[in-house]
Amino acid sequence: MPPPLQPVRWEDDALVILDQTLLPSEVREIRLETLEETWEAIRSLRVRGAPAIGIAAAFGMCLGLRPWRHERAAPASWETVRGEARRCAARLASSRPTAVNLQWAVDRILALAERLRDLPLPRIWERLRDEALGMVEEDHAVCRAIGRHGLALLKDGDQVLTHCNAGGLATAGYGTALAPVYEAHAKGMRVSVIADETRPLLQGARLTAFELQRAGVPVTLICDNMAAAVMARGKVNCVIVGADRIAANGDFANKIGTYGVAILAKEHGIPFYCAAPLSTIDRSLASGGQIPIEERAPEEVTRGFGRETAPAGVAVFNPAFDVTPHRLVAAFITEKGVARPPFGKSLADLFV
Amino acid sequence: MPPPLQPVRWEDDALVILDQTLLPSEVREIRLETLEETWEAIRSLRVRGAPAIGIAAAFGMCLGLRPWRHERAAPASWETVRGEARRCAARLASSRPTAVNLQWAVDRILALAERLRDLPLPRIWERLRDEALGMVEEDHAVCRAIGRHGLALLKDGDQVLTHCNAGGLATAGYGTALAPVYEAHAKGMRVSVIADETRPLLQGARLTAFELQRAGVPVTLICDNMAAAVMARGKVNCVIVGADRIAANGDFANKIGTYGVAILAKEHGIPFYCAAPLSTIDRSLASGGQIPIEERAPEEVTRGFGRETAPAGVAVFNPAFDVTPHRLVAAFITEKGVARPPFGKSLADLFV
Repeated sequence: MPPPLQPVRWEDDALVILDQTLLPSEVREIRLETLEETWEAIRSLRVRGAPAIGIAAAFGMCLGLRPWRHERAAPASWETVRGEARRCAARLASSRPTAVNLQWAVDRILALAERLRDLPLPRIWERLRDEALGMVEEDHAVCRAIGRHGLALLKDGDQVLTHCNAGGLATAGYGTALAPVYEAHAKGMRVSVIADETRPLLQGARLTAFELQRAGVPVTLICDNMAAAVMARGKVNCVIVGADRIAANGDFANKIGTYGVAILAKEHGIPFYCAAPLSTIDRSLASGGQIPIEERAPEEVTRGFGRETAPAGVAVFNPAFDVTPHRLVAAFITEKGVARPPFGKSLADLFV
Repeated sequence: MPPPLQPVRWEDDALVILDQTLLPSEVREIRLETLEETWEAIRSLRVRGAPAIGIAAAFGMCLGLRPWRHERAAPASWETVRGEARRCAARLASSRPTAVNLQWAVDRILALAERLRDLPLPRIWERLRDEALGMVEEDHAVCRAIGRHGLALLKDGDQVLTHCNAGGLATAGYGTALAPVYEAHAKGMRVSVIADETRPLLQGARLTAFELQRAGVPVTLICDNMAAAVMARGKVNCVIVGADRIAANGDFANKIGTYGVAILAKEHGIPFYCAAPLSTIDRSLASGGQIPIEERAPEEVTRGFGRETAPAGVAVFNPAFDVTPHRLVAAFITEKGVARPPFGKSLADLFV
């Protein structure tokens, strides 16, 4: 086994990420030293995947608040300090609107700072950094737990279809949707994956195929529009995808195309699962219609890979996510267990 | 209006095609003088679309049999001559297996040669060439008729989703799936199109968006995996696609992804139409399971944009077509009228 991937790590007071825009042709880390660099890295998908951008944003807060570390004088007032922290949080949250883990992570850092307000600023900063470091460890534990719970849904010989990348590269290193696959593979079960390439940015081709191949899990790459044909041939035993935000009723946002895959799975009688940590569940939203959907630049579609592939000036619709209604979901796989319908109750029960 | 597109034409005893692999960045014609050049042009999709490759293959026969034109001596025997013609037909038919129009066109040329066997070879050759030229005119008439019949299925303000390119570039110039749209547009109706980009070769982005933009029809480009989201937003009034082969029961093969779009249309209660000439109907096949499905090279998926976008050596499944079962089709639009279910009877009736 190759060493585990480290998409997001902290080193010498800087955030070091694997630049995922360069994969699979180049495996290169970049060092981020400011909040703005972190904002740009999230915005341009150098680091992506709901859990990974949550962690990156937590470290981004530490970078934004780094002056605290060396603050000798007592601050003018906690209100001033809090204002500074909130500005950092708002800036980071503005990088991408859909994944709730980002907001969840910066809120967690803000809340901790608030609880520690009576300490000297350098001490607060160290505790915030330790919190972010702890989130990396937590993410590992959460993903392993998702893998263990999801394992019960797989059997020997299964072929799993996945969309986009909710693997190690989308987390601190082990993945959500791919965690049950890795768990099964590690146990010696024969499991294989069909990876949708996932236009426009090809996270399935560039990232999912890359990390599965690296881990020795058999993977077959298809274009998104081939999923129905593969299902019709009886080649898919289940679908597992990740999520960027899950509403209280089980509707969830994930990479554009997920909703279509869910419909195809239903048509073919194939169970459709969503794997995600509890931090992806936004209990403040009753249903998926309230999830903000990011739209991205037309050039992602018209010149995704360095070559113009559409006529100049053509209108493009490029939503980065879609919402899958809960009725198409067989189960959510979380670190606290597998939630079955009705999700209003089963998801709420996970928080008890 | 710009001059009509001429994807396939005959000039100075050569076949001149618009090289569709270069669109939309370059509009360049190439001149084909041999059967082998024609085979290569069909195989590599320089000319594509079921009706257009039928016409190209008919001219390919003329190129393959060009020695007949100047034959002074009487042939050794008709069996020898027929053997030569059949070898040309088999070679051309081997270029792409799925679209039946190719076989239909070369069979038509072969049958005509057989009927003319008592004429001198140069006279036969001229009549075959005239037959191929006639097929261009026929195709124009057929496409216009498809447009007129399909018009009845559209209303003012409709937005039509289409997959791949079954427009002017797939025919002698007017299109099948896009013919009703062009007809409506010419009549002053407000119609617009959502074009699936159609991976791996992006015929929707490169060709459909190009020809609609050129004709002044509003078009919005999406990635294939966005169709479900667009439908869920209520933006699609109907789907119209072309076909490469239609079985007697109405199952039909078309560009990979068509089957998925049909399922999505059903889920959203959107009528799904297939527009094609009668030459696309293969009455010898009872159902779609018997249609041969071409699989193409993995590189179309892994380096379709001129850059490697997947890890080296990854397994790829790249079928060029899928089969949509007749139960998902609201109607076939043909030059003889609109056929509704049950298609076993309604399609057969078109041939009476």
